[in-house]
Amino acid sequence: MRMRKKKWAEPYLEAHPELVIPDPSLYKGSWNALLGCSELHVEIGMGKGGYLNAMAAMYPEAGWVGIERDHSAAATAARKLIEDPELSGENERMIAGNAEQLLDWFAPEEIDVIHLNFSDPWPKTYTHKRRLSSRKFLEMYHTVLKPDGLIRMKTDNKNLFEDSVLYFLQNGFTFTEFSVDYRRDAHPEDAVTEYEQRFLDLGQPVYQLCAVQLEKETK
Amino acid sequence: MRMRKKKWAEPYLEAHPELVIPDPSLYKGSWNALLGCSELHVEIGMGKGGYLNAMAAMYPEAGWVGIERDHSAAATAARKLIEDPELSGENERMIAGNAEQLLDWFAPEEIDVIHLNFSDPWPKTYTHKRRLSSRKFLEMYHTVLKPDGLIRMKTDNKNLFEDSVLYFLQNGFTFTEFSVDYRRDAHPEDAVTEYEQRFLDLGQPVYQLCAVQLEKETK
Repeated sequence: MRMRKKKWAEPYLEAHPELVIPDPSLYKGSWNALLGCSELHVEIGMGKGGYLNAMAAMYPEAGWVGIERDHSAAATAARKLIEDPELSGENERMIAGNAEQLLDWFAPEEIDVIHLNFSDPWPKTYTHKRRLSSRKFLEMYHTVLKPDGLIRMKTDNKNLFEDSVLYFLQNGFTFTEFSVDYRRDAHPEDAVTEYEQRFLDLGQPVYQLCAVQLEKETK
Repeated sequence: MRMRKKKWAEPYLEAHPELVIPDPSLYKGSWNALLGCSELHVEIGMGKGGYLNAMAAMYPEAGWVGIERDHSAAATAARKLIEDPELSGENERMIAGNAEQLLDWFAPEEIDVIHLNFSDPWPKTYTHKRRLSSRKFLEMYHTVLKPDGLIRMKTDNKNLFEDSVLYFLQNGFTFTEFSVDYRRDAHPEDAVTEYEQRFLDLGQPVYQLCAVQLEKETK
């Protein structure tokens, strides 16, 4: 979801290079060292950071990197973390940039888990190639994921979910988890964001899957 | 769904051997010849036959065989066909028996399309192996399906659908169609039965998939 442009966003992002990494390619291959962790989670399209901040707090032993191309959203995510006294943020970093550059930022087999939460559905056919679960992105994920790495996807969008099921299966992935109404079980291990809560309040189902690689195609 | 036992069912089935085949194994390998068709569709769990009868009428050039282990339901299906002057039934046969005998009745690679419509979800874990999409059945389907054969599944049951997705993927199938709300498009090519209409009237989604074999494992 596109936010209204915030004037304070750019200066804020630039003022916090310790959190919003200005040149992520400098850490290619060393994110775990930077974050002091041995398990790297990357959320692509973190939006305003509700999920990333909550999960980084819930799993302090893991490292969490959020990517967001909308600078207003990224700045909001950064500010929420910085201004919340309950969040340390030590195991968390953000990238205000376009995930098409993923291979510039992450080394082959560096990532344990990629999270895709309520990604932009890009409903028009000619924009489908921009979807974060489309072929081009799945090929990049094969490169940066560990051989036993996971892609965890959740969405409220029927068309995006249905098409993504076929994208994954046509591009070397299979599923280990699959749900057409994920939150009918509570799943306390997985943070519910305000954005997701809106759908749940409306009684709308959340679709979810966990994808793994059939065989490691890259490297 | 189990029907109340009908006393007239057994005599009715026995009185119509031209429709309800008493020994289906006699036609193993020759169903197309019997039905005068070149494309064989088999619905496993036809219930009261609403779907089978409608589809056989819509696609008279194909052959349609319905299997139902509940004899009261099978007799109801047969009677509906026989008593409806608008249905010829020439391209249709029924089997009142348990699909566990599928390999006795159909030759390897004899079937073009298997239909599973609103199958019994067998909710308790220890009964999952009776589900028509469970491993044991999928192995039989590999045998009787043509190499490019299809399994078309529809259900209203979330747990059955979610589990079935994983059953298919773990047993040599992938998907060419996939929907979490099949009837939001009309799909006039695919009959809506009274049973299905009940869910649609309640605003409940119908889950649907079309599975194909990754590679022909049998023969």
